[in-house]
Amino acid sequence: MRASQYLLATVKQTPADAVVISHQLMLRAGMIRRLSSGLYSWLPTGLRVLRKVEAIVREEMDRSGAQEVMMPVVQPLELWQESGRDVDYGPELLRFVDRHQNGFCLGPTHEEVITDLVRNEVHSYKQLPANFYQIQTKFRDEVRPRFGVMRSREFIMKDAYSFHADMASLEATYAVMYRTYCAIFDRIGVYYRPVEADTGSIGGSASHEFHVLAESGEDAIAFSDGSDFAANVELAEAIAEGERGAATEAMAELATPKARTIDDLVAQHGLRPEQIVKTLLVAAREGSESPLVALLVRGDHSLNDIKAEKLPQVAVPLRFATDDEIRAVADASAGSLGPVGLSVPVIADRSVALMSNFVAGANRDGVHLTGLNWGRDLPEPEVADLRKAVEGDPSPDGQGRLTIKRGIEVGHIFQLGTKYSQALNATVLDEQGKSLVMPMGCYGIGVTRVVAAAIEQNHDERGIIWPDAIAPFHIALVPLNPKKSPREKEHCDALYQQLTDAGFDVLYDDRERERLGVKLADAELIGIPHRIVVTERGLDDGVVEYRARRDSDNTLVPVAELMAFLGNAVKR
Amino acid sequence: MRASQYLLATVKQTPADAVVISHQLMLRAGMIRRLSSGLYSWLPTGLRVLRKVEAIVREEMDRSGAQEVMMPVVQPLELWQESGRDVDYGPELLRFVDRHQNGFCLGPTHEEVITDLVRNEVHSYKQLPANFYQIQTKFRDEVRPRFGVMRSREFIMKDAYSFHADMASLEATYAVMYRTYCAIFDRIGVYYRPVEADTGSIGGSASHEFHVLAESGEDAIAFSDGSDFAANVELAEAIAEGERGAATEAMAELATPKARTIDDLVAQHGLRPEQIVKTLLVAAREGSESPLVALLVRGDHSLNDIKAEKLPQVAVPLRFATDDEIRAVADASAGSLGPVGLSVPVIADRSVALMSNFVAGANRDGVHLTGLNWGRDLPEPEVADLRKAVEGDPSPDGQGRLTIKRGIEVGHIFQLGTKYSQALNATVLDEQGKSLVMPMGCYGIGVTRVVAAAIEQNHDERGIIWPDAIAPFHIALVPLNPKKSPREKEHCDALYQQLTDAGFDVLYDDRERERLGVKLADAELIGIPHRIVVTERGLDDGVVEYRARRDSDNTLVPVAELMAFLGNAVKR
Repeated sequence: MRASQYLLATVKQTPADAVVISHQLMLRAGMIRRLSSGLYSWLPTGLRVLRKVEAIVREEMDRSGAQEVMMPVVQPLELWQESGRDVDYGPELLRFVDRHQNGFCLGPTHEEVITDLVRNEVHSYKQLPANFYQIQTKFRDEVRPRFGVMRSREFIMKDAYSFHADMASLEATYAVMYRTYCAIFDRIGVYYRPVEADTGSIGGSASHEFHVLAESGEDAIAFSDGSDFAANVELAEAIAEGERGAATEAMAELATPKARTIDDLVAQHGLRPEQIVKTLLVAAREGSESPLVALLVRGDHSLNDIKAEKLPQVAVPLRFATDDEIRAVADASAGSLGPVGLSVPVIADRSVALMSNFVAGANRDGVHLTGLNWGRDLPEPEVADLRKAVEGDPSPDGQGRLTIKRGIEVGHIFQLGTKYSQALNATVLDEQGKSLVMPMGCYGIGVTRVVAAAIEQNHDERGIIWPDAIAPFHIALVPLNPKKSPREKEHCDALYQQLTDAGFDVLYDDRERERLGVKLADAELIGIPHRIVVTERGLDDGVVEYRARRDSDNTLVPVAELMAFLGNAVKR
Repeated sequence: MRASQYLLATVKQTPADAVVISHQLMLRAGMIRRLSSGLYSWLPTGLRVLRKVEAIVREEMDRSGAQEVMMPVVQPLELWQESGRDVDYGPELLRFVDRHQNGFCLGPTHEEVITDLVRNEVHSYKQLPANFYQIQTKFRDEVRPRFGVMRSREFIMKDAYSFHADMASLEATYAVMYRTYCAIFDRIGVYYRPVEADTGSIGGSASHEFHVLAESGEDAIAFSDGSDFAANVELAEAIAEGERGAATEAMAELATPKARTIDDLVAQHGLRPEQIVKTLLVAAREGSESPLVALLVRGDHSLNDIKAEKLPQVAVPLRFATDDEIRAVADASAGSLGPVGLSVPVIADRSVALMSNFVAGANRDGVHLTGLNWGRDLPEPEVADLRKAVEGDPSPDGQGRLTIKRGIEVGHIFQLGTKYSQALNATVLDEQGKSLVMPMGCYGIGVTRVVAAAIEQNHDERGIIWPDAIAPFHIALVPLNPKKSPREKEHCDALYQQLTDAGFDVLYDDRERERLGVKLADAELIGIPHRIVVTERGLDDGVVEYRARRDSDNTLVPVAELMAFLGNAVKR
């Protein structure tokens, strides 16, 4: 591509309304432009990247045996009524009526449509397993679209849906998709990790998220430093280490008139957070004898809401007791609660169960108890995994310790089970001729989001640094001063042809009115991973200047060796 | 692709709700499925064709120098208010509000969005000309979607928009797009013609439609048999031949008590339609002295509404006079009107002006006049081109005669002028530093419609016959009886690998439970242009059976020569 015939649209200033670096750089590099809240037009440079990501996703999905289809963006609302999600999905599902007053929505996902299609087309177990995918426009009416294409309303997703005759088949396809996702992100060239994910309200049995690791990521992920273990922090099992110490102290009262929080106890009474037990009263599940349940975590730990909600005693969603509810069971405010003599069921985190000689509220305002010991001062507690995992915890798989990093979710694979096939009655006949509700899997990649995530992970103060496989151009070709040097221009014209014929994507910066500095800055901002500068002096010596985007110095490459050199340097 | 792992989804019965052959065959061949009125899912076979059409369009657009972009499907309504089309476009523009009650629409076209983008990004004549295109989902809320993807609500269009510093540049790009469209449809392999089109209400200066010729086409197109002339019949100039004959008859009254129409006059009085003048009273344009105007066409011709509306005397839109309005100017009903003594302006079609000794109503019920002659019985008329061109008319370019064929519009190129750039104030600075409103062109191809049009033109009683370039598969590979013959199966397995490695798209029908007849019928229904059948007996003789989709007999091809044979036969 000749820059003189191309909409570069680079911008020097950082746009005021863009807070994350990928959004800033996509605007500055002329990749996208905002049309309206959460709606972006993709300019030529952005679209070149997007198409390369799409092509890699398509090739690997095809290789996996999945079949490409294309379903409409606009979906009839009646299918969502059939699955029950017209209510569950909430206002992110943008609904409208057509000219005949029939109800439709913009598809945020396509479980209903594909299940409808498959129930009509697939009738025998012999046609299974089948995995259908599309790369297609989605719309979610986010309440607060932000971060550019990272969380836009209209976006492109690769979504796939598999159908099976039994769970073993679903698990086999799930494993194929896991490997396919690894192949896709390997080829794209981002640093990523598959992460165990919460199956949440979709109610399936297994799920992995694929995260591109970057400091700006919205999700916290726990990794083992000694194994492949990785899980969303919200989901990672928290292991308690060591054994309970001996009961060496006697129980005693401590006057704590000004202490409301763990920090107050630490500051005012010289205690360590690890000595203290936090007592949290939450609503009990309907039908329980007691209206409340006490959850105990160590002073330096935090309650994990998702884990709490999985306890059979606890109401969903999790709700903390009000002051009045607390006063009804203990003559104290929240800051002076403790497990001793409390008239509600008590559940202790694993780490709490290992504590000895610990400190807790006395259920009287302004008083704590010290030297508490399980089995002596109060009964042995019921124990559960209640807290959030933290950096330094042992890895749940027993190998290594956890570190916490931030990630951007770019893919998600999910063993759905029969949620949708049951609701839409998608059945086939099995070997015995009996009707069978098909287990399903679903597999998504946020194609537009991958582009932004790659930038979050690969940039410097001068701009984007693309992995070769998804770069808008492999090579920037820049003559030093083509206006003054016909020889530079002629050499570049010929080289451009030669490189293009060899299959390289080249941005030939033939602009006559721009200085070299502007051209090099543009090439760096756009993130072109390789560049060649052609100068009169170099041609005298039979060389051109090569620099990789991450290099700080030029390499002089003999003209005769350039094609072979680039053939090695560019990882297509 | 192995048929055993592929959703063929062929159907024997003709679907009851599909009236045109392409719709029937796309359903029967498992290409598409209806999701809702005017909404279709594309199954693997359909999508393979669609992607090939897209790829050809993209390659040729890139070659033309156009730059690919991607604009959102969802557009803010405020841009349509700026152009005025929020009112003009009518109910085909599907509008809705988002969760914040802001107005949006589903884009049926993108003039507003691209003009908004370009006014923000392009500031100097030096950046012009620029031509931007996308291949993208559109939505038009058709009142009566029909014919499958031929007239669906959601569809895929390639739309391009060019911007210029002057009209000469627009005309140059228009010519490039004309040639690009020819290259696209040549490569796709359909029989098509570029056709002069009406610029209609968009108000541009030049326009061509590209039509795939097929009997089922919605548009009638007039072609010269002696030149390249082609025009929509609505737009083709109608030429009058010969000279006016001598006035040899005297004017006389003819009692026609039972004649209301031309057909009645012919049947009851032995007249020829070419002898008779039809007198049509229509509303005059506002401000005219007379409320009505009389338009005269020959009895065997039809009034062309579009031509009538271009007359300065006639109201737009064209409206025929009511009975009361007729009675106010002539003491007769519509069937007895004539130009003699009529008190409103009279405009005669060119053919009428050449008539002599003709017949017309007497402006008295039940009476006609015969032997009428211009200049003797009534004044010489004002003459205009008023009628529809008909088969056999001289070509307007003076070469040959017209034939009328039916066509399906699959492309449209248009010199828009400044309609949108003016409304949205899209300007650049010219060489003198003065502000200049950019002339624009727009260029569309109905990508999904091309697929249907290709089928309308290429099918027989057994199914579709794809042009090689857009066939879902180039070759159907079918073993006679793989269950019984391991040798056939082994040979086919190896051949499938060899053909795939050579870059052919192959449907290898390895289904064990289907008979040969079913497999061949499926391959023919799907329209695969080449097929190879492998039999034990053939392998004994070292040959396989080849048949092109249009052939009625097999060709025996030596196994050793097969790759070379197919290399010649398949036009990729």
